[in-house]
Amino acid sequence: MRISGTHYRTIWPTAEGAVRVIDQSRLPFEFATVDLQTLDDAAQAIRTMVVRGAPLIGAAAAYGVALALRSNASDAHLEQSVRELQATRPTAINLAWALTRMRATVAAVAPQERAARAFREAAAICDADVEQCRRIGLHGLDIIRAAAQTLGRRINILTHCNAGWLACVDWGTALSPVYMAHDAGIAVHVWVDETRPRNQGAALTAFELAAHGVPHTVIADNLGGHLMQRGQVDLVIVGSDRTTASGDVCNKVGTYLKALAAHDNGVPFYAALPVSTIDWSLDRGGDIPIEERSARELTHVTGQNSAGALETVRVVPQGSPALNLAFDVTPARLVTALITERGVCRATRGDLSNIHPGRRAAG
Amino acid sequence: MRISGTHYRTIWPTAEGAVRVIDQSRLPFEFATVDLQTLDDAAQAIRTMVVRGAPLIGAAAAYGVALALRSNASDAHLEQSVRELQATRPTAINLAWALTRMRATVAAVAPQERAARAFREAAAICDADVEQCRRIGLHGLDIIRAAAQTLGRRINILTHCNAGWLACVDWGTALSPVYMAHDAGIAVHVWVDETRPRNQGAALTAFELAAHGVPHTVIADNLGGHLMQRGQVDLVIVGSDRTTASGDVCNKVGTYLKALAAHDNGVPFYAALPVSTIDWSLDRGGDIPIEERSARELTHVTGQNSAGALETVRVVPQGSPALNLAFDVTPARLVTALITERGVCRATRGDLSNIHPGRRAAG
Repeated sequence: MRISGTHYRTIWPTAEGAVRVIDQSRLPFEFATVDLQTLDDAAQAIRTMVVRGAPLIGAAAAYGVALALRSNASDAHLEQSVRELQATRPTAINLAWALTRMRATVAAVAPQERAARAFREAAAICDADVEQCRRIGLHGLDIIRAAAQTLGRRINILTHCNAGWLACVDWGTALSPVYMAHDAGIAVHVWVDETRPRNQGAALTAFELAAHGVPHTVIADNLGGHLMQRGQVDLVIVGSDRTTASGDVCNKVGTYLKALAAHDNGVPFYAALPVSTIDWSLDRGGDIPIEERSARELTHVTGQNSAGALETVRVVPQGSPALNLAFDVTPARLVTALITERGVCRATRGDLSNIHPGRRAAG
Repeated sequence: MRISGTHYRTIWPTAEGAVRVIDQSRLPFEFATVDLQTLDDAAQAIRTMVVRGAPLIGAAAAYGVALALRSNASDAHLEQSVRELQATRPTAINLAWALTRMRATVAAVAPQERAARAFREAAAICDADVEQCRRIGLHGLDIIRAAAQTLGRRINILTHCNAGWLACVDWGTALSPVYMAHDAGIAVHVWVDETRPRNQGAALTAFELAAHGVPHTVIADNLGGHLMQRGQVDLVIVGSDRTTASGDVCNKVGTYLKALAAHDNGVPFYAALPVSTIDWSLDRGGDIPIEERSARELTHVTGQNSAGALETVRVVPQGSPALNLAFDVTPARLVTALITERGVCRATRGDLSNIHPGRRAAG
């Protein structure tokens, strides 16, 4: 993706041996990068959401293993690194997927080769993510193009949270079809849910779409249902942090409410995700662990003050407790279809089994 | 209601001839009152939400007419004042109801008596509001008591926006049953929706409940659906700015999403409102005018900075437009019942006709 004419990924190794990431905690008002030098740097970046988004968390964890092995390539340190990284965020499945892949790959080679092998594997995970997101975009493009042909006007797409290129290595999941459609000359407009409490929509999705020139409007999370009632939303596309084998979609808290409204108003509701986001071991979405984050993310808001500096203000009175659960689960019955790199499939156990990695790819 | 041991209403005439209101734009971090001296003061206070909440808007408009007539009691000025006050907020029906009542009352007396008559009528509207809210509380108390008896544990009530005493003259609508239950020794806990973009839940409902000692937890508007899925919400009670003769409930934007989630999870969903909130001339909720407010309410957030001062920060990047519609409509099919001062009734045309003011009061 391009920012001010320069092509960026969200994560890349530097010539000096660090892993550089865009600091997403400072967007949209400051564009800055951070260099990760150690395992602790990587774990901290994931925990504090300097990097976030299910696919990017997986990529950052992979590089975290590589950084860990550079200082100590023993079996014991490999295991400890994987444990430490796994503990940073409980809900997104890509984290576990990437760590499992990294461990299997590097454990198979001699300790003195492990760090180099880990860096190559992390790079391969990143490249694969870019290609998956590109394919998700192409499959989703078909859906948007069909809607545009049917309706004969600009297509209004609602999205929740940020599942764009900032959440991945490039392209994005939910937003990849939007970029593809925009680039193909199809008129699209995105309703951007603010996404309280961390405002990933207002801060990151709005930033991304503006950088790419895609028409969009930021709305309160409360407004999407009303817009659907008024016929102002043609389709909903969100990402997913974990999807069960039966098609229940875990995503940023509030997604379930939008799925209910879409269902009530006959608006198609899609989740866009790489197959690595599917947890084949889980049937019931209710069994997915839901991350509880600090109440401070809700009680305090960070933005740009009148002097242009980032400042944090309290919005909930001191005496009032707050609860901050970061995800919810949308039951498969409310999901029109899943958009994956292997194609579009219904959110049912049967259709999902057709895209299981154990199956030969459909192409 | 008591704040630090002192009993307050939200609006009252002072001995010096002003109308004093609590400045709700500064809560919860600063408790201050403002004196309204003129028609323009009153209109401005309503427009900028120094006073807000459907019942309180009606009371403030009534006093606005009285202030207007004190400077000029002519027929022409009466009409102009009513028009100016009516234009301040388009959605809440109590505003029109109070203005119609004020005009009919004062037009019937000679100009030199009108100001005094208007002050008496405004005071009567306030007293009636307090009594209506008390009765709403008693009817709602029956519902909470029944839930407590059935479940045998603390009752978890979710509310959206602020429909407490700050939205009325005293007691509140949605929160009146909560205060009654708490005072009656029934264990209750309130999930307080933050209520973006103006944060009336985090700022006002949390403030009210804390002042009264009612256990509560502030949550993002996005979280309520997930809590219902987990069985952590026993009932939902909201207010209403306008309800149609067929039972469609217009309330703060986002209410519809909570009603959908309540319906999906078998959680009873109540709207608590004085009968004056019912628009007998409207059948379809879709015909209610929905107020569009400044995008700045969404793009900027005001809170308390680390020095303890109120400060406003921008949370949406400059290049991204925002849309701020303040209300939505919950279809009657999602409403379990309406709690009014005349009793609890189903949200149907037939049941509603039984509480029409033209009917003899049931007592």
